[in-house]
Amino acid sequence: MPISISVKTDSRTEMVNITSSVQKEIAGVQDGICVVYVPHTTAGITINEGADPDVCDDILTKLSELVPPNRGYRHTEGNADSHIKASLMGSSVSVMVENGRLVLGTWQKIFFCEFDGPRSRKVYIKF
Amino acid sequence: MPISISVKTDSRTEMVNITSSVQKEIAGVQDGICVVYVPHTTAGITINEGADPDVCDDILTKLSELVPPNRGYRHTEGNADSHIKASLMGSSVSVMVENGRLVLGTWQKIFFCEFDGPRSRKVYIKF
Amino acid sequence: MPISISVKTDSRTEMVNITSSVQKEIAGVQDGICVVYVPHTTAGITINEGADPDVCDDILTKLSELVPPNRGYRHTEGNADSHIKASLMGSSVSVMVENGRLVLGTWQKIFFCEFDGPRSRKVYIKF
Repeated sequence: MPISISVKTDSRTEMVNITSSVQKEIAGVQDGICVVYVPHTTAGITINEGADPDVCDDILTKLSELVPPNRGYRHTEGNADSHIKASLMGSSVSVMVENGRLVLGTWQKIFFCEFDGPRSRKVYIKF
Repeated sequence: MPISISVKTDSRTEMVNITSSVQKEIAGVQDGICVVYVPHTTAGITINEGADPDVCDDILTKLSELVPPNRGYRHTEGNADSHIKASLMGSSVSVMVENGRLVLGTWQKIFFCEFDGPRSRKVYIKF
Repeated sequence: MPISISVKTDSRTEMVNITSSVQKEIAGVQDGICVVYVPHTTAGITINEGADPDVCDDILTKLSELVPPNRGYRHTEGNADSHIKASLMGSSVSVMVENGRLVLGTWQKIFFCEFDGPRSRKVYIKF
């Protein structure tokens, strides 16, 4: 199995900064491309600003405005919106690694995007 | 050329589960990352739930609600909406492979997303 | 550091075709997968049609319609919309390379997506 990290979410929708957990796992890698993958269908992953938590709040609020819960969807498990948001954000990000460090922009952090929490989730990492 | 699989679509918008076709092509790969790529500009690719077909219906319905066809777009070929949806879904997914098997979550399947069908399409696969 | 190319943008929102710049950098690569990565949080990257510039105009117009600027966002730097659009488009694309050439579909070009310009930006490339 690939390297796996655990993510615990506390709300229905939430963005969790997993950058340091990913960094820890790739410390031994000198050089390459790292894929960070979400094996869930009601969660996604994205890279965005980590300095001001309002940025993540705005992303979650806008996604819920575009894809509100419980609006006559056909999927009847109450999480149709979560599935749609997962596809809008995507299931993986690719990040470069050099000298054992993730190559991120100054403001970039990697965020696990929970759209149907709270839950215990996994994220896979591979080079 | 990379490995190529053919996808035949029957409607203007449609999500086609291509997981088993991709799995067949990567059977000889022991370990790595597989990129599944759509060489079209009015189609995309995503990973989402495969058990209940209503999930895909909801994704397609919501995309058409957010990006309706024929709404005063500048591109005059009648598929401006298809191009926009293609960028929202993305042109590739990255999936891990271990021991000749795609590493997917329990509910995850890979879907070719047709936004301007019906057509004969290609999907490229590379490790 | 990875290979870096510079992109100069002239408007607040703009899509810049960077395909030939990327092609130039990968000319020596025989075979592989190339990740093109945006190290910014108010810009994204996508692959779409390059023949008719109206396609890009339609994408930018629709994104601004779905995520208008200055609509009561919590992030107060005036670019909350730019961050949200960045996550909708994504921070990287993966493209196959064979015999020193990007494997793109007939109409496909790689576009840097500026959402908070005009600015001087970077794009990273790695194999």
